[in-house]
Amino acid sequence: MESLKTKVLEQIMLAKQASRQMALRSRDEKDKALFAIADQLIADEAAILAANEQDLSRAEADGQPASYLDRLRLTPARIRDLVDGLHQLASQEDPVGQVMESWTRPNGLAIKQVRVPLGVIGMVYEARPNVTVDAAAIALKTGNSIVLRGSHSAVHSNLALAGSIRHALSAAGLPSDAVQYLPYAEHESVDVLCTANGLIDVIIPRGGAGLIQRVLKQSSVPVLETGVGNCHLFIDSQAAYGMAEAIVLNAKTSRPAVCNAAETLLVHRDWPLTHQHALLKSLLSAGVELRACEQTKALHPDLADQLKDASDADWDIEYSALIMAVRTVDSLTDALEHIQRHSTGHSEAIVTEDLEAAERFLAAVDATTVYHNASTRFTDGGEFGFGAEIGISTQKLHARGPMGLPALTSYKYVVHGTGQTR
Amino acid sequence: MESLKTKVLEQIMLAKQASRQMALRSRDEKDKALFAIADQLIADEAAILAANEQDLSRAEADGQPASYLDRLRLTPARIRDLVDGLHQLASQEDPVGQVMESWTRPNGLAIKQVRVPLGVIGMVYEARPNVTVDAAAIALKTGNSIVLRGSHSAVHSNLALAGSIRHALSAAGLPSDAVQYLPYAEHESVDVLCTANGLIDVIIPRGGAGLIQRVLKQSSVPVLETGVGNCHLFIDSQAAYGMAEAIVLNAKTSRPAVCNAAETLLVHRDWPLTHQHALLKSLLSAGVELRACEQTKALHPDLADQLKDASDADWDIEYSALIMAVRTVDSLTDALEHIQRHSTGHSEAIVTEDLEAAERFLAAVDATTVYHNASTRFTDGGEFGFGAEIGISTQKLHARGPMGLPALTSYKYVVHGTGQTR
Repeated sequence: MESLKTKVLEQIMLAKQASRQMALRSRDEKDKALFAIADQLIADEAAILAANEQDLSRAEADGQPASYLDRLRLTPARIRDLVDGLHQLASQEDPVGQVMESWTRPNGLAIKQVRVPLGVIGMVYEARPNVTVDAAAIALKTGNSIVLRGSHSAVHSNLALAGSIRHALSAAGLPSDAVQYLPYAEHESVDVLCTANGLIDVIIPRGGAGLIQRVLKQSSVPVLETGVGNCHLFIDSQAAYGMAEAIVLNAKTSRPAVCNAAETLLVHRDWPLTHQHALLKSLLSAGVELRACEQTKALHPDLADQLKDASDADWDIEYSALIMAVRTVDSLTDALEHIQRHSTGHSEAIVTEDLEAAERFLAAVDATTVYHNASTRFTDGGEFGFGAEIGISTQKLHARGPMGLPALTSYKYVVHGTGQTR
Repeated sequence: MESLKTKVLEQIMLAKQASRQMALRSRDEKDKALFAIADQLIADEAAILAANEQDLSRAEADGQPASYLDRLRLTPARIRDLVDGLHQLASQEDPVGQVMESWTRPNGLAIKQVRVPLGVIGMVYEARPNVTVDAAAIALKTGNSIVLRGSHSAVHSNLALAGSIRHALSAAGLPSDAVQYLPYAEHESVDVLCTANGLIDVIIPRGGAGLIQRVLKQSSVPVLETGVGNCHLFIDSQAAYGMAEAIVLNAKTSRPAVCNAAETLLVHRDWPLTHQHALLKSLLSAGVELRACEQTKALHPDLADQLKDASDADWDIEYSALIMAVRTVDSLTDALEHIQRHSTGHSEAIVTEDLEAAERFLAAVDATTVYHNASTRFTDGGEFGFGAEIGISTQKLHARGPMGLPALTSYKYVVHGTGQTR
């Protein structure tokens, strides 16, 4: 009997073989395959929903909460969203084959730096089955193979979706083995994926901090880390009130659960006290729980009942909820010091009319994206104009911040000579 | 008493703090520091050579071979080479602060992608103490801090060199803590370095395959892998003889110990037999041991005595010596198949006058650098015109092939708004 490791490695090797063909396919061939996948999902809708029903029944029997069931659930409308996403992706430029740079050396060697696919992507993710289609589509568009390992609670849904994708690939003349789904409940299947150096070129974990940390620790294959966002807004002494209020409310309340939402508000103590007071009232009116430092509470005694006490731990929490930590700082330097200590390096913003303070902030803060007079909520592939987004990288190697299609490519040097030797 | 882990983490944290200052220094300040380090090495020459003598005595007492002692040895001439390298580095462009791309969104947000230092680099390396200076200099030029951990057999030399560098940094007004040397014999010091996520941004291992694999396996920090080169030369049926001979001799014999030297010669069976014969004779005359496949031996019966038998293992060996595996292939397809199976993805070359065959080879072969009618020996930062070279990456993430100064940078997005919310 085959061991689990052997079975997983076989799938990975099939993906590797297919990746060599994928790398040579034209944009036109890949886009046709994306349309074929879209058509196949519509044709297979009943079977996909039936498979999803199996996963939902089990999750319900297991007593999973409603929010969990909602993430797991597929509906005709959600399948339509996947189809729309595939059509949009097909309309985007193909980064593969782009000549990034080219030059000729004094000895006549002509060197070109050409974008190529990464090869084989390993994807480990939780719950939502739509990731199966989104991730496979982005990998195929960029000429890669992908080995998927989703949450075992969605295994029937994921296998049905992967089956439709593979069927459509064959019909479109592309290697169906470019998309592999690992259906194993055992965590060992993730271990094999994360240590398949030479076969897997990058691992992308998508999910909670626990999943990401586990993959980071056990992986010898390079990992593209998408991390948490403990994002700060600093209201400088020279901030315009209306702008500050609009940005703070937007960054905190428009979608508190996402990683680019703001968690901590830093207020310069020299910002007019009436402004400070109005801003806190405005946040409270919007239903935001405020956890304030002692200085803030002292400055606004009439709000004492409505301001909770911030503990030291509050400066490091990504609330992902309508809660905000508030701290009064004595200077821009103190704000920078606070951010340096507590930032997760995701997105940080300053609101000010003082251009010198803004430039100092933008230069000193070490984060994927730093903002002057705009909401942190813009850290997003779509908002940046990238089209498809693979995630937001919080590491510094390879890709940082919102990742578009080029993040799934590497490059090679193509050198033409006329017999040069060294 | 402090544990080793605590002591190592303290040094890493000092490097991290210094990195924030380094990131904001101008090219001029950093170049002045490089000149100051060069001057300091000259001033400290006697002390450095005395420290090196301690390491050499111990290595001799341990019975290390002459080649080992040579790698370990510092001389006035070698210190002069380090000084020249520092001066050259100072003359190179600073990638930090470069705007890689900039664009404005329909909502008016102005987005700039700006090069920034990686932060803190961890470097684990073997034997040669000159790496201490080269690596520190490149890190400083690109605004990074570096934590160095060299071979313990060179600890006195490395501490003396790091001491000179730190002294010069202070004198030049830069934070001396940007350069840290870990003097601990225990391998645990490497473990701490490789798992200091959030403090160390990248680990670069330099040394043998054993060291690199150990670092890859134990590191949760991203690793920049510089790997081995099992490089192939394919002589197509349409190769010009003179060019083929020059390229093969150069790629095999000019410096057989380096990673871009060729290891396997693939010859198209339709290349004129007289050419094949002449090339083999030429290699034998140059003192190259040839390990040939059966078909090659059958084609050249008069060379039977001089051609050794290639075993299956020979196709995967990086000889790093005047030995070459030789295989006759029936077609370009067979050559591609062989390379796909045995290549380490470093450098691969085709020699041919058939442009169609060349383009097929260049597209299909998955390696950092692919050559048409040139020697694989050109895969080198200097030969590419990059100035300083950090190494040759054989991974696909972040940097591939010869790495120049930009490989030690990341980027951040700097966004200027006028109050935009989402």
